[in-house]
Amino acid sequence: MENLQVDNALIKLFRVWFSQNDTELIREQLKDMYPQDIAAVIDRLENEEARQVMNALEKEVVVKVLVEMDELAREAFLSAYSPFEIANQFLDNMDSDDAAYVLNHFPNSVKEEVISQLQDIEYASSLLDLISYEDETAGSLMAFELVKANKNWTVSQCIEEIRKQAENVDSIYAVYVVDDLERLVGLLSLKSLILNPLDTKIASIINEEVISVPASAKIDQVAKITKKYDLVALPVVDALGRLVGRITVDDVVDVIKEEADEDYQLMSGITEDVDPTDKVWVLSRARLPWLLIGLLGGIASSRILGIYENQIMIHPEMAFFIPLIAAMGGNVGVQSSAIVVQGLANDTLGTNNIVQKILKELRVALVNGIICSGLILAYNLVFHQGFELAITVSIALLTVIIFASIFGTFIPMFLNKLKIDPAIATGPFITTSNDLFGIVIYFTIGRLLYHSL
Amino acid sequence: MENLQVDNALIKLFRVWFSQNDTELIREQLKDMYPQDIAAVIDRLENEEARQVMNALEKEVVVKVLVEMDELAREAFLSAYSPFEIANQFLDNMDSDDAAYVLNHFPNSVKEEVISQLQDIEYASSLLDLISYEDETAGSLMAFELVKANKNWTVSQCIEEIRKQAENVDSIYAVYVVDDLERLVGLLSLKSLILNPLDTKIASIINEEVISVPASAKIDQVAKITKKYDLVALPVVDALGRLVGRITVDDVVDVIKEEADEDYQLMSGITEDVDPTDKVWVLSRARLPWLLIGLLGGIASSRILGIYENQIMIHPEMAFFIPLIAAMGGNVGVQSSAIVVQGLANDTLGTNNIVQKILKELRVALVNGIICSGLILAYNLVFHQGFELAITVSIALLTVIIFASIFGTFIPMFLNKLKIDPAIATGPFITTSNDLFGIVIYFTIGRLLYHSL
Repeated sequence: MENLQVDNALIKLFRVWFSQNDTELIREQLKDMYPQDIAAVIDRLENEEARQVMNALEKEVVVKVLVEMDELAREAFLSAYSPFEIANQFLDNMDSDDAAYVLNHFPNSVKEEVISQLQDIEYASSLLDLISYEDETAGSLMAFELVKANKNWTVSQCIEEIRKQAENVDSIYAVYVVDDLERLVGLLSLKSLILNPLDTKIASIINEEVISVPASAKIDQVAKITKKYDLVALPVVDALGRLVGRITVDDVVDVIKEEADEDYQLMSGITEDVDPTDKVWVLSRARLPWLLIGLLGGIASSRILGIYENQIMIHPEMAFFIPLIAAMGGNVGVQSSAIVVQGLANDTLGTNNIVQKILKELRVALVNGIICSGLILAYNLVFHQGFELAITVSIALLTVIIFASIFGTFIPMFLNKLKIDPAIATGPFITTSNDLFGIVIYFTIGRLLYHSL
Repeated sequence: MENLQVDNALIKLFRVWFSQNDTELIREQLKDMYPQDIAAVIDRLENEEARQVMNALEKEVVVKVLVEMDELAREAFLSAYSPFEIANQFLDNMDSDDAAYVLNHFPNSVKEEVISQLQDIEYASSLLDLISYEDETAGSLMAFELVKANKNWTVSQCIEEIRKQAENVDSIYAVYVVDDLERLVGLLSLKSLILNPLDTKIASIINEEVISVPASAKIDQVAKITKKYDLVALPVVDALGRLVGRITVDDVVDVIKEEADEDYQLMSGITEDVDPTDKVWVLSRARLPWLLIGLLGGIASSRILGIYENQIMIHPEMAFFIPLIAAMGGNVGVQSSAIVVQGLANDTLGTNNIVQKILKELRVALVNGIICSGLILAYNLVFHQGFELAITVSIALLTVIIFASIFGTFIPMFLNKLKIDPAIATGPFITTSNDLFGIVIYFTIGRLLYHSL
C-alpha cells in the first residue's frame, strides 16, 4: 500500500538535498513518486524550493502535479511565467478538463489572455467552449478527450483511431459510437474490440443502451447517475444529442465527496467550504452567520422570557428547566430535518406526500416524547421538585418534542418545494426556532398549570 | 438522460399488465430497462407481483436485479427457493462480490448451508474465503473475478486469457500481471494490449508502479487511495503480495457515500443508519440515545441552576439570557468539532500539533467572540437592560465562545488519539457539555460582577 501522507522525514530529506544542491538524488526520488504525492510535497515547500522540484520533473509530470497542487502554490509557481508560457508550456500538455480547472482559478481577463496565446487554435477554441459552461453543470466537469468512432466503421478502423488518439487520451474505458451527424448512438467496450475479428462491423457489436447526460445537467444528477448505474465514464451530449465530451468517475468521486463535506459543514453551521488550514479570517467569516442567527435567537428568547419575569420571580424553579426544554427542542428538530434533508438528497424519501411524512414523524415523536417526558416526570417526582413543576416540565417536553419534529420535517420539505437547497437553512435555522418555540410552549403551559392546579 | 426515479405511472402500467396477464408487454417493457431501474420497480410491488416480474427476466438480469433490490424484497423473493436453488440458480451466476454481499444478509447458518450446496466447488471455496474477511476491510469489498497474466506472457497470450475470462469478468479495465509466485508485479492497460504487436513480451509494456492494498486494509483507506490516485479498480494482495482480488470504483463510490451519510447522521444525533422509509420503531431507536444524553444534560443544568436559585429570584433578568448563552456555547462547539472531525477524515488537518491547532482555534474564537459579545453589549445597553446584566452577559458570552471552541477542538482530537471515531461523540456530546459549562460560566461571572459592581 502506498503511503498516503507525505511525512516530515521526506520533506527534511528534500531540504538536505536542496542544501547540497543534489539534483541527481532529487530526480531519483521524484521518479518513483506519483504526481499526487509530489504535489503534496510541493504544498509544504517554500516557493523557491517548489520551483526546484518542478524543474527536476519531466514535462508530462509537471502538468499533472500542477493540477493536483494547492491553489496558492500553483498561483505562486505560475506567477513566474508569461501568459504565452502558461498557455504553451503547461495548458497545452494538460487534459482539457484539467486545463479548464486551472484556468477557472484565474481572473476572467487573465483566463482569456492565456487562452488567446495558445498556438493550437483548435484546442484554444475547445477550451473556450469548456470554460463557458455554467458552474456545477455536466459541461463544466467534462473533458473533450475521448475515442469516438463512426457506427459504419470496422473494428480495425476503431483500433486505428485509438492509435491516433492514444497520446491524448490517458484512460480510454470505451469507444463512443456516433452516427454521421455526430449523434451518440452506442458504446463499444475495449473488451469487444479485443475479442472480435478486425473486419467486424462495429454496428453489430455496440451496446445501444448507452447512458448519457446533456451538458446542461446539474452535477448532482451526474453523480447520482454515475453511482446508480456503476459507470466509470459518462458521455455528455448537446441539445441535439451530439457527443461533446465525457465525464470520468474520478471527477464524480470528487464531486460526491465535496457535496457531502459541504452538507456536513452546513449542518454544523459553517456556511463556506473551509479547511482547518485556512486563514483565521476565512474560518471566522464562515462561522459568523450561524452565530449571528444564534445571537438573534438568543435576544428573541430573552425578550420572550422578559414577558414571564413575574412568573420567574415567584417560581424561580421554572427557570431551572429552560436549558432542558430548549436543548430537546433543538435536538429533535435537527434529527428530523437531517433525515428529511438526506432523504431528499438520496431520493429515498419514498413517494408519500408531505402529510403522510409528517404523520409518520408524529408517531416517531410520540414514542420518543412519551419515553423522555416519562423519564423526566419520574426524576422530578423522585427528587421532590413539586407536582406542578413536574407536570409542567413533562407536558411541555412532550409538546415541544412533537412540535419540533413536525417543524423539522416540514421546513426542509417546504424549502425543497421552493427549489431552495434544504441543507442551507436546516441546521441553524431549525435549532434557533425550536429554542424559541420551546420556551414559549414551556411558559405558556406553566402559566396555565400553576393557575389551575 | 435516463429517468432516475421510477414514477407512479410506470407502476400503474405494470399493474394493468398484471391484471390482463399480459406477459408479452411486461417482457417488452423490461427489455429496455436497466437492472437498477427494474429493482426500483420491484421494491414498490407486492411480493406476488415482484415474482411475476422476476420470472419474466432473463437469468443474467435476474441476478443483477437481485443485488440491486431492497433487502426485504430480496428476502421475500428468495424465501420461495431452497438453499440448493439459491446457490445454483442465483449465486452461481453472480460476480463473487455480489454473491458475498447477498450471502452476508443471511443468518450465519443459512449462509454456510447455501454455499455448501454450490455445485461449482472452486467457486464455493472462493466464496467461503470472501465472506471470511472482516467487515469493513478491503477483502470484504473485493471480487476475485479479474484478468490475470504471467509477466512472461506475450500480448497474444493475454488476449487469449481475456477471451477465456470474458464471460466471467464484466468490466476488465486492465490486466493484472503476476510473477511465477502469483505476486502482483504490474498492470497492463487494455490500450497497450490493443496497440502493441501480438508477439510483444508484456514484461516490456507493463506499468510496474501499480498501486495495491492488502486484504486487511480498512475500507476508508481503500476509499482514500482510490480517490487520491483516480483509480477505477484497485488490486488486493495477501500478506505475501499475491494477487487475491480487486475492488472496483463503483463499490468505492458506495462506500464514500455511505460513510458521508453516516457522519451526517451522527452529527445530527442519529446513531443508526436509517432511511425515512424505515419503521417507526427503528427511527425512534436511532434517535433515542442523543435525546437521552440531552435529557441528562438538561437535568444536570437544572441542578446547576438550582444552586443559583436565590440569584435568579433576586435578579430574574439573569434567567432571560440562559438560552442565549447555552445556544451560543453549543453552536461554537459544534462548529469547531465539525472542522476537526472533517479535517481528520480528509487528512487536511495539516501537520500542526494539538497545541498549535488550539491556538489557531483560539484566534478564530476571539474574533467571533468579540464581534458577538460586542453586539450583545450594544443591544443590552441600548435597550436598558442594566449595566451589570449587560456586562455579565457580554463577558460570559466571550468566555463561553472561547471555552466552547477549545473544548470542541480538543475532544475530537483526543478521541482520535484514543482511536475512537471522533464523529461518534462530537455532535450531541459537545452540545450538551457546552450547554452545561456555559451556564456555570454565566452564573459564576454574574455572581462575581453583581457583587463587585
